[in-house]
Amino acid sequence: MRVFVSGATGVIGRRVVPALLAEGHQVTAALHTLAKAAALGAIGARVRQVDLFDPDELRTAVFGHDAIVNLATHIPHSTLGAFLPSAWHETDHIRREGVANLAAAAEAAGVRLDVYVEVDVGARRCGVPPGEAALELAREIAARPALRFAGLQAYHGAAQHLRAMGERRAAIESAARAARETRLLIESAGIACPTVTGGGSGSFAFEIESRVFDEIQPGSYVFMDADYAKNEWAAPLPRFEHALFVLSTVMSRPTPARAVLDAGLKASSVDSGLPVVWQRPGFRYARASDEHGVLEIDSGATAPALGEKLLLVPGHCDPTVNLYDWYVCVRGGVVEALWPISARGALY
Amino acid sequence: MRVFVSGATGVIGRRVVPALLAEGHQVTAALHTLAKAAALGAIGARVRQVDLFDPDELRTAVFGHDAIVNLATHIPHSTLGAFLPSAWHETDHIRREGVANLAAAAEAAGVRLDVYVEVDVGARRCGVPPGEAALELAREIAARPALRFAGLQAYHGAAQHLRAMGERRAAIESAARAARETRLLIESAGIACPTVTGGGSGSFAFEIESRVFDEIQPGSYVFMDADYAKNEWAAPLPRFEHALFVLSTVMSRPTPARAVLDAGLKASSVDSGLPVVWQRPGFRYARASDEHGVLEIDSGATAPALGEKLLLVPGHCDPTVNLYDWYVCVRGGVVEALWPISARGALY
Repeated sequence: MRVFVSGATGVIGRRVVPALLAEGHQVTAALHTLAKAAALGAIGARVRQVDLFDPDELRTAVFGHDAIVNLATHIPHSTLGAFLPSAWHETDHIRREGVANLAAAAEAAGVRLDVYVEVDVGARRCGVPPGEAALELAREIAARPALRFAGLQAYHGAAQHLRAMGERRAAIESAARAARETRLLIESAGIACPTVTGGGSGSFAFEIESRVFDEIQPGSYVFMDADYAKNEWAAPLPRFEHALFVLSTVMSRPTPARAVLDAGLKASSVDSGLPVVWQRPGFRYARASDEHGVLEIDSGATAPALGEKLLLVPGHCDPTVNLYDWYVCVRGGVVEALWPISARGALY
Repeated sequence: MRVFVSGATGVIGRRVVPALLAEGHQVTAALHTLAKAAALGAIGARVRQVDLFDPDELRTAVFGHDAIVNLATHIPHSTLGAFLPSAWHETDHIRREGVANLAAAAEAAGVRLDVYVEVDVGARRCGVPPGEAALELAREIAARPALRFAGLQAYHGAAQHLRAMGERRAAIESAARAARETRLLIESAGIACPTVTGGGSGSFAFEIESRVFDEIQPGSYVFMDADYAKNEWAAPLPRFEHALFVLSTVMSRPTPARAVLDAGLKASSVDSGLPVVWQRPGFRYARASDEHGVLEIDSGATAPALGEKLLLVPGHCDPTVNLYDWYVCVRGGVVEALWPISARGALY
């Protein structure tokens, strides 16, 4: 594909451009100034200076592309933040105007942007209510030639960690009912609803059973974590194995019943529970402080040696991965690869 | 000072060397191979190839230095980890042998290493019990010419977050009594005990009152956090102000009573409680998921606008700082500086 990327030098853009190039796409990097153009040129992007506030120039620039990735924004004073209300207003103004101009340019170029509507199917987080509210939004999208209504995002995050299979099935049956009725309402208004997407590692088989969902989104199953392991697992949901571990070292053994690890809050997220010591049933990870983890040793268990390595299964895989810069990929006791955790720290 | 650093190219070493140079010290970087020598030379370190397993060579190399920083270790297969027991054994062997050689070399060069004994004064984490156990360790240290017994580490972490002033005072009175008696025991054995160190942001005034401590170690007072703010604060402990905030954006406002922020578990550590919305009493941060924070809006409060920025006071400052690569330093609404968070991710 030929992809037009605005904001190519920003925090997200500088990750997106190499990823697109690596997948074999042609990338046009739209830049406001050419200060960072050389680096983009060097990795194979086609650089083009474009003023996003000039609709004619923009229309010409996007012509001939198959897709547009709009990452352009502007925060005055510094690229890393501005605290003045006037700055927020300016940012908001720029985002809206940029999107409107891009929509117009996309229209002129015959490019359409896919837009999903998020429906709150039980998680009480983002999303409009099922039914009329979703239809209203779908209508607004369908009315714009540059936008295509792509379907419904119907993810029920809260259902993933309900322990009993029966509870999870009931929650997803309710979510699927809401998604089905909303899709029928939209389709009966003459608007195609190509994709209903949702489901997570704890529930995806129920989304599949419902026959409402066209796409599932499980992610944690790749690693599993101590919290997911507490769920009841039975057919039709397979039980996945742990594949994410924190390698810790015994740094102190002050009493026979207590050992201290060098892995605390900076090594493992504890929001969904403490880590579990892998395959050492007599050891209990009892407390975490910033750089320490306190292990309680059962009276029947042999205490670990000073310097001994213990593997921990984190309580929650997602925010634990976010603490690290690299995955260390191990097979059969040998490190086979290092994978960068490229989105970590992308908050700014 | 002239400082000899082994392991200068390692994860810790490559942070320590520039820091020593920036403070005006002369640094000799001891390297096993010269593969990374050029980079060290470029920043002003004096590079020297040294075999840590050759005691004679090492003795010559450290001669004339005022201090030794030993960061050398070796993990086979990869610099980032090895899971085979044989590798752990080798690492342990290398660490011990390296330290022994360095101690001998330090002795030959007339350099002495300061060593503290950690005493468990109530936190039940690391440390030997007060009294005889600490004296025994101090004796072993004092018996080695290359080591100097520097004193007692007597930090009572668990006392910092006791809410009532009276509880914290009582806990530190008990800790100070243990430290005082241990110091007297060691001194009565003819061993000087130069420094008793301890104290944190929630208790340091009580350590000072005790007249046992020569050094205090408070750190969180610089930032404060929502958890420390729940403590009772009165004389002699000053009340510090919040100085660490997470800047978040309202990304969704699905109902009048609920808003969703783009700051969740990856933006603020929740181990000691959820973040608090700064100076917006009608907004309550109610739930955190990986990339979302759900706000509950009081019926009397005006809901925030979509795109509005809200400042959050994190529940726990230390592991929250650990999530970021940079501090954004703001004064009077203007970004004045960016400070790197250089030790973040230094776990490997």
